[in-house]
Amino acid sequence: MIIVMAPSASKKDITSVIARIKELGYTPHPIHGTTRTVIGAIGDERGKAVLQSIEPMPGVEQVVPILKPYKLASREIKSERSIIKVAPGITIGGTQLLVMAGPCSVESEAQMIETAYAVKAAGAQVLRGGAFKPRTSPYAFQGHGEKGLKILRKAGEAAKMPVVTEVMNTEEVNLVADYADIIQIGARNVQNFALLKKAGKSKRPILLKRGMMTTINETLMSAEYCLSEGSRNVILCERGIRTFEDATRNTLDISAVPVFHERTHLPVIVDPSHGTGHAQYVQPMALASVAAGADGLMIEVHPTPEKAWSDGPQSLDFAKFAELMKALSPFIAAAGKTL
Amino acid sequence: MIIVMAPSASKKDITSVIARIKELGYTPHPIHGTTRTVIGAIGDERGKAVLQSIEPMPGVEQVVPILKPYKLASREIKSERSIIKVAPGITIGGTQLLVMAGPCSVESEAQMIETAYAVKAAGAQVLRGGAFKPRTSPYAFQGHGEKGLKILRKAGEAAKMPVVTEVMNTEEVNLVADYADIIQIGARNVQNFALLKKAGKSKRPILLKRGMMTTINETLMSAEYCLSEGSRNVILCERGIRTFEDATRNTLDISAVPVFHERTHLPVIVDPSHGTGHAQYVQPMALASVAAGADGLMIEVHPTPEKAWSDGPQSLDFAKFAELMKALSPFIAAAGKTL
Amino acid sequence: MIIVMAPSASKKDITSVIARIKELGYTPHPIHGTTRTVIGAIGDERGKAVLQSIEPMPGVEQVVPILKPYKLASREIKSERSIIKVAPGITIGGTQLLVMAGPCSVESEAQMIETAYAVKAAGAQVLRGGAFKPRTSPYAFQGHGEKGLKILRKAGEAAKMPVVTEVMNTEEVNLVADYADIIQIGARNVQNFALLKKAGKSKRPILLKRGMMTTINETLMSAEYCLSEGSRNVILCERGIRTFEDATRNTLDISAVPVFHERTHLPVIVDPSHGTGHAQYVQPMALASVAAGADGLMIEVHPTPEKAWSDGPQSLDFAKFAELMKALSPFIAAAGKTL
Amino acid sequence: MIIVMAPSASKKDITSVIARIKELGYTPHPIHGTTRTVIGAIGDERGKAVLQSIEPMPGVEQVVPILKPYKLASREIKSERSIIKVAPGITIGGTQLLVMAGPCSVESEAQMIETAYAVKAAGAQVLRGGAFKPRTSPYAFQGHGEKGLKILRKAGEAAKMPVVTEVMNTEEVNLVADYADIIQIGARNVQNFALLKKAGKSKRPILLKRGMMTTINETLMSAEYCLSEGSRNVILCERGIRTFEDATRNTLDISAVPVFHERTHLPVIVDPSHGTGHAQYVQPMALASVAAGADGLMIEVHPTPEKAWSDGPQSLDFAKFAELMKALSPFIAAAGKTL
Repeated sequence: MIIVMAPSASKKDITSVIARIKELGYTPHPIHGTTRTVIGAIGDERGKAVLQSIEPMPGVEQVVPILKPYKLASREIKSERSIIKVAPGITIGGTQLLVMAGPCSVESEAQMIETAYAVKAAGAQVLRGGAFKPRTSPYAFQGHGEKGLKILRKAGEAAKMPVVTEVMNTEEVNLVADYADIIQIGARNVQNFALLKKAGKSKRPILLKRGMMTTINETLMSAEYCLSEGSRNVILCERGIRTFEDATRNTLDISAVPVFHERTHLPVIVDPSHGTGHAQYVQPMALASVAAGADGLMIEVHPTPEKAWSDGPQSLDFAKFAELMKALSPFIAAAGKTL
Repeated sequence: MIIVMAPSASKKDITSVIARIKELGYTPHPIHGTTRTVIGAIGDERGKAVLQSIEPMPGVEQVVPILKPYKLASREIKSERSIIKVAPGITIGGTQLLVMAGPCSVESEAQMIETAYAVKAAGAQVLRGGAFKPRTSPYAFQGHGEKGLKILRKAGEAAKMPVVTEVMNTEEVNLVADYADIIQIGARNVQNFALLKKAGKSKRPILLKRGMMTTINETLMSAEYCLSEGSRNVILCERGIRTFEDATRNTLDISAVPVFHERTHLPVIVDPSHGTGHAQYVQPMALASVAAGADGLMIEVHPTPEKAWSDGPQSLDFAKFAELMKALSPFIAAAGKTL
Repeated sequence: MIIVMAPSASKKDITSVIARIKELGYTPHPIHGTTRTVIGAIGDERGKAVLQSIEPMPGVEQVVPILKPYKLASREIKSERSIIKVAPGITIGGTQLLVMAGPCSVESEAQMIETAYAVKAAGAQVLRGGAFKPRTSPYAFQGHGEKGLKILRKAGEAAKMPVVTEVMNTEEVNLVADYADIIQIGARNVQNFALLKKAGKSKRPILLKRGMMTTINETLMSAEYCLSEGSRNVILCERGIRTFEDATRNTLDISAVPVFHERTHLPVIVDPSHGTGHAQYVQPMALASVAAGADGLMIEVHPTPEKAWSDGPQSLDFAKFAELMKALSPFIAAAGKTL
Repeated sequence: MIIVMAPSASKKDITSVIARIKELGYTPHPIHGTTRTVIGAIGDERGKAVLQSIEPMPGVEQVVPILKPYKLASREIKSERSIIKVAPGITIGGTQLLVMAGPCSVESEAQMIETAYAVKAAGAQVLRGGAFKPRTSPYAFQGHGEKGLKILRKAGEAAKMPVVTEVMNTEEVNLVADYADIIQIGARNVQNFALLKKAGKSKRPILLKRGMMTTINETLMSAEYCLSEGSRNVILCERGIRTFEDATRNTLDISAVPVFHERTHLPVIVDPSHGTGHAQYVQPMALASVAAGADGLMIEVHPTPEKAWSDGPQSLDFAKFAELMKALSPFIAAAGKTL
């Protein structure tokens, strides 16, 4: 922390702040400038958020944090990138580009099995599908629950694909982990800390979606919640942030990919379906994500998007998904990766 | 919904969309303009989000929703404002301005009892204090849990004040409802739909905080989750939204007060402590909230803000809180309310 | 500035940064912590933005600015608030609450004279009306130009009111200053630095609207442009910032009022008409602005809002404006001000 | 426009709105639904913004615009993409990827000539450099003005490269057009309508930067200002929008590339230097931009970024720029383009 004193701060104000810094267990380093004094208090600030509490003291203008607040997620702790094993022969974080594809909601067994074969044929390695659905409206389809998990598992086994699905509630973490190879925490639950902790105790890899309102550092703090409970397998997912622009459902922050890669060893994927909200923008943004260095993609695919129970406008049909995978091919190569 | 067809849409495209609208149970009303056709599909869209799914059909440019998606929260269902009874003689939503005050975290019994007497003496009617704390960092103080609930209850009883505290997890809703008069759902959980449903089954009034990135309508949809489970007692709380401005911790959207009042019968309070993040802005924003028509305020108060375990920079000490309440007095009168 | 070195920074990196700080004319103050070194470089950074240029040097993680970049606008230079004389007996910044009212666009002489008498009767002291109109569309009404200025002047003289109007182009600053008592710089031109400089050379008070995208500090830097050219009479105007919320045209940042008052001696008014975009929210937000300490208000008023050539949805008719002024009265008193 | 009436609207309200629509020259199409009436008023709304003015009429809940407000910029007017000739053998908008590179500010002749040769050798086709600099602070370097234009021209001629530079003021449009092959309008002036009009009268191609808080549609309206004055050669530039994320200087909205391509025939380039603000993110975002279909790039390059007079932290040195151009090569090929 750096404590910036106001120009009007008295000698007594400065002395009190220095005393308080010591009391909190830090060593103060005052720098007396021409117009004001700033006081450094360097050391491991983690777990000591109370230093921030100096702000209301008389004469203090600003308290500036210096250290990054995450630790286990940081490259300072682990400089080489994490490679996470999702299933035999399927990893993420190395040179393999991981593509997860499937419908927003698990609707029926026929829909899931048809989709599983189609996305696998086009090159996807992981099947997605929602059984517990976070919907803005209580009157909208809320997902098939456990029945949906069973269908998803069955479709995954049919096509020999690992599956990923969302968990929304601490009470269902174990249930979801029984059926899924990867458990997903959705954007709206990115700061549902009870859920993060529970998921962090699971043996399954966690796919953690960035919230539409969380900064990159806050997302890493959410990952830190999982890691601090014992998990080592957190995959981050950029899926668009909320801005003033309304041409797209969210603004896909592709620059989050290099920023995450700089700050953390965890793999990073991009979801251009939620990120744009419109099927016609999914392909260019998938290509851009791979070019920016993403470790994987998550794409919504539905046999008949105009009949999807949810997220139809942003879903690709099988032909468009196959086209996307074909278009992706030279970009994957250019990025030094393989499927 | 209004379906806007592209100028390039063919006759066949238009016919297909009309057929699909009928198939979904609506009556289509096409309007053929000089450059394009738009098709109205009016009726109760609630529970029929699938109409949105027409967007990917050929020739469709845009699907524009018309109806507000909430129902039980709307003034169309209940035109007069709801007055919620919090405790004997204490209501919110009528002419009584409700002030909830207390520390961010329950730290100790001494701290809570001292605070309860102080805020009551200054005019507050409800005591707040966090036992389960949503913290960005897993290394920060997470709250005393049930022990904290007991202390809060004890302090409330000592000062004869009802108490409000946050619940973060479905598994703890009943526990919190046992101790608290009002159960709070925090901004980070505003779209934790499992939690909203569970809270909606409780008999306690619910204080629902707007998320830092939820729109007013989305917040009403979250209230709708509680109402649709049976609750009739939801109090909304504006506490600042996330914007590019960094002079304040969040941007307090005071205009949400008249907008909420226009759209819903539910009472609306404002939390200028989280909304600004700095103690020196709390008083002017509290005054402004009352002038804008807020039904109540939630203010963080701590015996010694510079030693608070959380949110010290935005907490008022007892003297400043008393000063605020005194300054508030003529504004409460001007707004036609009483404490 | 505080230069934060990466944990991996070598001794040579640190030495180079220290050398560069000296080269730029500052005195370096290194603080060697347990995991990293930070280097303070305190002094007047204004005019020396080059210190920021240290960021690309090897081993540097972050460069944190400490000083506020404005000087003439700051309370450090002038601690008491500025009271600006607008016309004989009319000031802003003291205990007089200044209300500017009138239509968005000057449409006709009849419209302006009728409006001038009506707003004056209701209590407004300054007449507003646009002659040069910044419109998003080149096909929309662009204003009557000099003819509009003449009408505005005439209406102001008829009702004995000073007038305020916008200038959009350096080439028209002198023309506008010939007709107007206050020259307004609109939100879209808040960083039109050429225009700010030209206006700063005018003898007229300047009404500077905050941009929908500028922070409070950037707005003060724009004011600094005017002040640095010799003007002493800049009035700041909060008129809403752009956020994700779409219930209102912009999000009126009322907390900007106390923040501006803390940082600058310049008076601050609020424009709830642009800030909300809807007539029905103007009154509650006007009340809130006065409660928050605003020095004045700017309100759009039109004889028949539904026939206004621009901004009809946010304009009050005469009856509603009179009602607003009446409702405002006890809040003005509560704020310790008079009209 | 679609006028949505409130459920409480009376028959008289509806009749009045219908009458007003006719009065404004449109044909009303009422649709009477079960809970409310909506009224379509289809036709060319351009130049008739007054239809929006129906909003304040009694019983009106909402007025929803349907048509896109731009015309000359739209693909409805010109379905094939515009290819703009910048200099002999150099075009943008076709299969040639155009790279503009150079320093933020023109500092000296030596700096510019050195840079011109270096960026040309690495593959850039156009030289950039600022002579008039929009700076947040009046105390920062404001650019060399006409002297800077001369240096830029000289460097361009030395390396046989066309040059692009910013104009900030209507009074200098002709001067800048005398020296520059492309005249740039900066993000802060994107809604300086007087400047847009003046530039639109110039014979030079215009590089129009999106504002940090203008929507895609508003940016197209700004382009429409230039086009409506006669220009046919407007190049759009995405350079990042302002959001809550602070890891990057702005959030580069790469999805703007496919959205612009869908809505307009004008070419679109991306500026990852301003878009990210940090040199280390420029390369991945340049790659991503090309993958998303950008027609060109604008990159800040400086001989010694840590000594740059402006924007050093986001500038590449010669080696890093050459590395970027090399890395870009397979992505340009994958995108079906050539340098």
